[in-house]
Amino acid sequence: MARRAELNLDEYYPYLINRVGMALVAGFEAEALRRHGLSIAMWRVLAALSSNGGQRLTDLAVMTSIDVSTLSRMVTRLLRLGLVTRTRSRASEREIVVSLASKGRTLLTRLIPIARRFEGQVIAGIPDSDLAPLKRALRRMHGNLAGLQVPRRKRLA
Amino acid sequence: MARRAELNLDEYYPYLINRVGMALVAGFEAEALRRHGLSIAMWRVLAALSSNGGQRLTDLAVMTSIDVSTLSRMVTRLLRLGLVTRTRSRASEREIVVSLASKGRTLLTRLIPIARRFEGQVIAGIPDSDLAPLKRALRRMHGNLAGLQVPRRKRLA
Repeated sequence: MARRAELNLDEYYPYLINRVGMALVAGFEAEALRRHGLSIAMWRVLAALSSNGGQRLTDLAVMTSIDVSTLSRMVTRLLRLGLVTRTRSRASEREIVVSLASKGRTLLTRLIPIARRFEGQVIAGIPDSDLAPLKRALRRMHGNLAGLQVPRRKRLA
Repeated sequence: MARRAELNLDEYYPYLINRVGMALVAGFEAEALRRHGLSIAMWRVLAALSSNGGQRLTDLAVMTSIDVSTLSRMVTRLLRLGLVTRTRSRASEREIVVSLASKGRTLLTRLIPIARRFEGQVIAGIPDSDLAPLKRALRRMHGNLAGLQVPRRKRLA
């Protein structure tokens, strides 16, 4: 008979993080995105463009943790929705640069305040003295996971 | 013209948490689950059964953050794989009780040490003084999100 193996999910960091992650996605989709036909990944692309201006596809992939081929298809959808523009880079004909279209900027003007309010509801009651270690820990985990060399194309699974 | 709206993803908690959550899922699927034909949700069900024994479907749904109807289909798949058993509760004919089958216990004996090692790699370099606030913050966020009344069926989106 196998040795009795136990794992207490309630104390297991990957579960504690992932259940919050799933609820964050579901919550923000319900709160803000669904009525605009946007997925969480599409929203993330728009938000990344809001703070950094036009971006090469490769840089945008890093900023949003979305692999380049998935991102490329998503940009096509955002283009059809009139939310972004896609141009060739001046520096290199082979590089695609994605920017917010006017309609995308207008939409973000509505969504970003909702996003900030949502974040406020999510972290309500957590003292600042816990938020700083939380952010440090999340960044370290992100770095650790990147170092584990998971194939990039599986990152959105 | 719309007011310029910006959101810095790198400082936005929902993004910082969710990109770690996605990478955790992808990492553990690649590391341990794919070769056994298991999804992260199926693994979570097995892990919950490992520490708590046979469970009513409704309790298992709460423990794993998976809604009852999704869970019910998943249990059917786990049953076909021979990893769990499904019986009627003695207390109530209408209640289903899910338990680990012998084959499921054996598989967990292999997977749980991999899960613990994976967790160790993920939190490597984070001091204990940051892990305690991290856990507190994650639990608080989970509670806050539950209070936002997102429809349960969307939780796995």
